[in-house]
Amino acid sequence: MLDYPALAAVAEIIRSGSFEGAAAALRVTPSAISQRVRALEDRMGTVLIDRGPPVAATAQGLRLAAHLDQVRLLESGLALSQDRPVLRLAVNADSLASWAMPALAAAPGLLDLTIDDQDHALDWLKGGRVVAALTSDSRAVTGCDSLRLGILRYRAVASPGFVARHFPNGVTAESLALAPSLCFDAKDALQTRWVQALTGRRVVLPMHRIPTAHGFAAAARLGIGWGMNPEPMIRDDLDGGRLIDLAPGLPLDVPLFWQFSRITAPALAPLTQAIMKAARAALLP
Amino acid sequence: MLDYPALAAVAEIIRSGSFEGAAAALRVTPSAISQRVRALEDRMGTVLIDRGPPVAATAQGLRLAAHLDQVRLLESGLALSQDRPVLRLAVNADSLASWAMPALAAAPGLLDLTIDDQDHALDWLKGGRVVAALTSDSRAVTGCDSLRLGILRYRAVASPGFVARHFPNGVTAESLALAPSLCFDAKDALQTRWVQALTGRRVVLPMHRIPTAHGFAAAARLGIGWGMNPEPMIRDDLDGGRLIDLAPGLPLDVPLFWQFSRITAPALAPLTQAIMKAARAALLP
Repeated sequence: MLDYPALAAVAEIIRSGSFEGAAAALRVTPSAISQRVRALEDRMGTVLIDRGPPVAATAQGLRLAAHLDQVRLLESGLALSQDRPVLRLAVNADSLASWAMPALAAAPGLLDLTIDDQDHALDWLKGGRVVAALTSDSRAVTGCDSLRLGILRYRAVASPGFVARHFPNGVTAESLALAPSLCFDAKDALQTRWVQALTGRRVVLPMHRIPTAHGFAAAARLGIGWGMNPEPMIRDDLDGGRLIDLAPGLPLDVPLFWQFSRITAPALAPLTQAIMKAARAALLP
Repeated sequence: MLDYPALAAVAEIIRSGSFEGAAAALRVTPSAISQRVRALEDRMGTVLIDRGPPVAATAQGLRLAAHLDQVRLLESGLALSQDRPVLRLAVNADSLASWAMPALAAAPGLLDLTIDDQDHALDWLKGGRVVAALTSDSRAVTGCDSLRLGILRYRAVASPGFVARHFPNGVTAESLALAPSLCFDAKDALQTRWVQALTGRRVVLPMHRIPTAHGFAAAARLGIGWGMNPEPMIRDDLDGGRLIDLAPGLPLDVPLFWQFSRITAPALAPLTQAIMKAARAALLP
């Protein structure tokens, strides 16, 4: 059996960023924290905390902290434990910004959200760094269940002024090659995919990079660029004429999935139900 | 003199994530891209692109790409160049969410924003990875000018239901030790600082981690936790009674700075002026 008080020390050091912070949280002395960690490291034959500065977890330390969270989550299902479990979740930015936040209020514990940059969510799930992921990635992960939540529909939008300036003769491969587009990050291929669907060509787009969902939508409203926005986030702007749909007949549909570790599924059930319910209300089937 | 066409190839590979993407963007063949990069690597005696998979920049490759951006930015000041310069900026999340986005529309080129997690903005500025940073960090950076923009005022807020449930007898060190708080990320010390100012004690707070500015404010509105929110983001919620100020006499004031590389200052001038103007309107002096 692992030494759980020592694991708790490691987890608190990671959480608070210092031995003193962990000592305060666990109501012991910093030297007690230090001893516990060293004893655990000796026993496991590996360094768990890089003493820095800055103090930081090693990959092994992170894995143990995530394991402790899972054990606490399982304990919470026994209704015997005093500790509030921490739920490490990966969530894709557009879902968090447009429909998922109210459902997360049903989480049985403290939320620890990481913004899913798509490529990483499933790796985190595999490695045990998160217990569940709200993601557009449908690949199966060993030991995890996957529920299809529905479709988040994206629309290519820009401000009226932007359309008048950059697309006076329509949205074509030629005008798109010159008009600044928006992208969320280097992995955001939605704009390029949509342009290919529209024009049948791969067009190299001039791009602003705006790595927050609300900043991205605001940049479209301000006429900084055109971009693919989730319909629930911009419906009012379309209705109010602040944004124009560049091709109403050509949305881009992105299916979303809730993937979660099977072992913690019973403890996660209230959250899973809330996510399913919110998805039914907000997403397309 | 550096081989700038080769540098452009390196920068496009980093931007697009592939040799093919770079070839398409620069309208040459992938093998021409490959040759240029190899020749530059041979000349510099260092690897610039890790061929992967996935294809990624080395630290040296990133440095060269950032240098190219700066040269393009300088060229844009000559009004001779056809290339749209890329402006790599670090911006703190709360400023982006609350007041800074309209000012960024004045940027003379394509925006490439990185969310400043405070600790890193100045390192990025020092290393040349960004040309300017909107940050709460006031330390001086060699080769950079720093303008004080004003104060972003934070208020400790929660929903009426949350206040009734967790603070029926007032906001005290004891009730704060049990009531779930919100934090943005591991480095967000605003809640702890405010609690210390209020109670005179260091209290270990149970924390939800919500790493987006709008998600953070939404979590407060939904009664998930209490947290420090920028006043410009939640003024309507306070006026409308959706959020309650836990201690109206005790806001937390965070001064903000615009730090930018002196060499690119003339090219950045329109953006600097727009930032200063927006800050005067939105921030406290």
